[in-house]
Amino acid sequence: MAIRIGIAGIAGRMGRLLAEETLAAGAVLAGGTRRQAGAAGELPAPVLPDIDALFAASDVVIDFTHASTAATHAEAAAAAGKPFVLGTSGLSAAQEAAVAAAAQRVPIVYAANFAPGVNLVLAIAERMAAALPAGQYDAEIVEMHHRQKVDAPSGTAVALGRAVARGRGTTLEEAGVESGRDGHTGARQTGTIGFAALRGGQVVGEHTLLFAAGSEHIALTHRSFDRRVYATGAVRAALWLQGRVPGLYDMKHVLGMG
Amino acid sequence: MAIRIGIAGIAGRMGRLLAEETLAAGAVLAGGTRRQAGAAGELPAPVLPDIDALFAASDVVIDFTHASTAATHAEAAAAAGKPFVLGTSGLSAAQEAAVAAAAQRVPIVYAANFAPGVNLVLAIAERMAAALPAGQYDAEIVEMHHRQKVDAPSGTAVALGRAVARGRGTTLEEAGVESGRDGHTGARQTGTIGFAALRGGQVVGEHTLLFAAGSEHIALTHRSFDRRVYATGAVRAALWLQGRVPGLYDMKHVLGMG
Amino acid sequence: MAIRIGIAGIAGRMGRLLAEETLAAGAVLAGGTRRQAGAAGELPAPVLPDIDALFAASDVVIDFTHASTAATHAEAAAAAGKPFVLGTSGLSAAQEAAVAAAAQRVPIVYAANFAPGVNLVLAIAERMAAALPAGQYDAEIVEMHHRQKVDAPSGTAVALGRAVARGRGTTLEEAGVESGRDGHTGARQTGTIGFAALRGGQVVGEHTLLFAAGSEHIALTHRSFDRRVYATGAVRAALWLQGRVPGLYDMKHVLGMG
Amino acid sequence: MAIRIGIAGIAGRMGRLLAEETLAAGAVLAGGTRRQAGAAGELPAPVLPDIDALFAASDVVIDFTHASTAATHAEAAAAAGKPFVLGTSGLSAAQEAAVAAAAQRVPIVYAANFAPGVNLVLAIAERMAAALPAGQYDAEIVEMHHRQKVDAPSGTAVALGRAVARGRGTTLEEAGVESGRDGHTGARQTGTIGFAALRGGQVVGEHTLLFAAGSEHIALTHRSFDRRVYATGAVRAALWLQGRVPGLYDMKHVLGMG
Repeated sequence: MAIRIGIAGIAGRMGRLLAEETLAAGAVLAGGTRRQAGAAGELPAPVLPDIDALFAASDVVIDFTHASTAATHAEAAAAAGKPFVLGTSGLSAAQEAAVAAAAQRVPIVYAANFAPGVNLVLAIAERMAAALPAGQYDAEIVEMHHRQKVDAPSGTAVALGRAVARGRGTTLEEAGVESGRDGHTGARQTGTIGFAALRGGQVVGEHTLLFAAGSEHIALTHRSFDRRVYATGAVRAALWLQGRVPGLYDMKHVLGMG
Repeated sequence: MAIRIGIAGIAGRMGRLLAEETLAAGAVLAGGTRRQAGAAGELPAPVLPDIDALFAASDVVIDFTHASTAATHAEAAAAAGKPFVLGTSGLSAAQEAAVAAAAQRVPIVYAANFAPGVNLVLAIAERMAAALPAGQYDAEIVEMHHRQKVDAPSGTAVALGRAVARGRGTTLEEAGVESGRDGHTGARQTGTIGFAALRGGQVVGEHTLLFAAGSEHIALTHRSFDRRVYATGAVRAALWLQGRVPGLYDMKHVLGMG
Repeated sequence: MAIRIGIAGIAGRMGRLLAEETLAAGAVLAGGTRRQAGAAGELPAPVLPDIDALFAASDVVIDFTHASTAATHAEAAAAAGKPFVLGTSGLSAAQEAAVAAAAQRVPIVYAANFAPGVNLVLAIAERMAAALPAGQYDAEIVEMHHRQKVDAPSGTAVALGRAVARGRGTTLEEAGVESGRDGHTGARQTGTIGFAALRGGQVVGEHTLLFAAGSEHIALTHRSFDRRVYATGAVRAALWLQGRVPGLYDMKHVLGMG
Repeated sequence: MAIRIGIAGIAGRMGRLLAEETLAAGAVLAGGTRRQAGAAGELPAPVLPDIDALFAASDVVIDFTHASTAATHAEAAAAAGKPFVLGTSGLSAAQEAAVAAAAQRVPIVYAANFAPGVNLVLAIAERMAAALPAGQYDAEIVEMHHRQKVDAPSGTAVALGRAVARGRGTTLEEAGVESGRDGHTGARQTGTIGFAALRGGQVVGEHTLLFAAGSEHIALTHRSFDRRVYATGAVRAALWLQGRVPGLYDMKHVLGMG
């Protein structure tokens, strides 16, 4: 029988993408909650009165709404004995502790980035770094994002850098960073990790990790084309949770890279 | 104390690169053998009379000469109780059996391609394919080589394709291949593996494996700039062999990807 | 005073993009025609009864509808004394002759591909080929499109090849083509133009032209992300037409590459 | 009859490459000068006593030695009535004036970078920038060089930026530069030119100029694989000079991009 998926915040931009991807995956769209009461508009599923009603109607619930409700929703999952997919970022330590407590009773996937490719790339980056000696292979990370982005390097670029450092048995802070080279930089230091940021157009996100030795280069590139990829990953996590034992999982586990 | 490395066929093009990389790695160049007797020319190490003398003078021997001597050299390794790095291709089944027999007594690294990056890329390709469902991610392999190359796709491209198929729990033959699209090809079939070959200039070797879904692309690229990379990998294997138990290893083990 | 742009076929997918890009360019959306009568729905501009009414209300009309109406619309432009942008493909020789006749009385931009970048890339490809001797620089063209595309290489890839041949003072047929290498191909022939096609995901269109010599590579890449780029180019052509003398122009003229 | 080419500084690293490329081009290697007297070693051509003797023996002379001798050598060319190829950088204004004066009597090619592809890319960059409005297309320049390089961005990257600014009818200084983004950068400013620098391995030189709009990207990439490319370009310039009228030329003229 098809899995019934419930969507917290189904009327929002991400909620609608989650609803579409639920149907595209062949699952049943059990219903959703929405922040504001009132006319349902053209929502593709029944709007349920609250999170408990949503869990009652669903085999698993996906939540990309707000950090402020993450703990309550995780506790509702535990009370209902149903698995839960949480994609909200910015949780406080207390909120994270509440999620972890709920995960002792039901299986929960909690991740900062649900794009399957990004998680795969992070896992692979660590293995590559472990296999390629820092003394021979210079690690450089290049990212490109749309012209509105106000900081550099991107969070995912930094996560890539941390993965490389981990693979080399160190930390990004100890390895040293060369970010935004400009002017008299001196020669590259062995073992540091380089970052460069491009900005332009409406690029959703491109990241390349390059290991450059004298005789060979190895590059790993991820390109995101739209935010839908996060919805696809979350639905995949929801399906993967069926039959799992309680615990706190992230996308690495879903992808079999754990 | 520094490791003493011996080089079979030290006067050839590959032998000279192996000698240079031995010294670059801080190891001792113990000596070499050469096919033809006569003046040593400007060789950077003593020329020894035969393979047994070379093993006697060395802690480990590297051999990129000929398939015809692989079995004899492996047996000399076993007789001397010394590890052995074998980079010769084209061995017969009987020759491979002799190498395997010797590997019961001493540790031997035997590999078709010693470029660290190529082996890493092959190992990673399999993991990527296992994590990215064939129904969503189309796998395409593009390779470029110099204008003299007479066949397509390259052996490494095919090896990449086999790695993808393995990661998906199938074989290249069962998955199906779309190689050299030209004319009316019809729509891409789900699950097949695509190959495209570029030829031009003096490219030593470039390979890209691309997984393309609607919302994201993930690409893994390897570029070889000169044949020295094979010598670098072989010397690395020689150093890695110190203290290993007898057995037949390949570059995956050396790289910690096994 | 702002330019008034009229859109033939404003209710279609391309028509809506043209309307949006008209407004984005700061022009006035004068109105549109539509194939079917009936309720206007949520169209962003008045629907006019026919092409003559549309020209009367507009300073310039853009038409991406059908080859079957191209001649009639061009004649309406000439009758109204208004410039015209025609993006329809598949015109017969008689239809093209009618467009050319109208262009003796009003300025018309008629092009197969309105993406500014594609036209620029075609113009540049010819110049590059003229500057880089075929005996030293091997020309290779790689294209990637979505998995539904049924033929290879793409029309734009072939146009790139023709531009290279033109730059070398020959034709694609005389230069020779190596498309879809697979199996025993023999060494690359000097002066031929290579083609390779990738298929996967939902790629709108990527084209790379590579000139590969032993010591250097020069590559020119175009990537289309959505069909909107054609609407952007058409609106740009419409604005460019203001104040032009009668004549048949293409996008090269609009881009100043003619 | 084959052209006789003379090489100033034939015993140096660049001189030997020039000698090899002279022969590869089917020209006659007339001889060379060298800084230090003494045994000729294995030089492939007679060593002549001074620059005047070299001009006497040659149809054209190529000089990649030192700024300090550029004026003397140009004057020797004028005195001998022979064309001259000058690839020295770092000339003072007085030295450049002496070269220009000599060029009133004989044809001289004087360029900072003889790689045909780099000169072509600079010329094309200007045309691209002229065709792609700065308000829609963000220009970003990425360069990669070996780990020993001590400054960023590279001179060629800056030259690319100047070419883009010129194409847009402005200067790099007026357009504004965003180089080495790191930290809180704010949104990208319209019309500025971005620079990013990668360092690693032994990369001789890679430069990419990207124009990024919302719907399309256009990229131009140059990759140098060895310094030989400069010798190839210089020999090409030497052959091109035969029969030219006196004047000061650069590589754009040689390549027909002037």
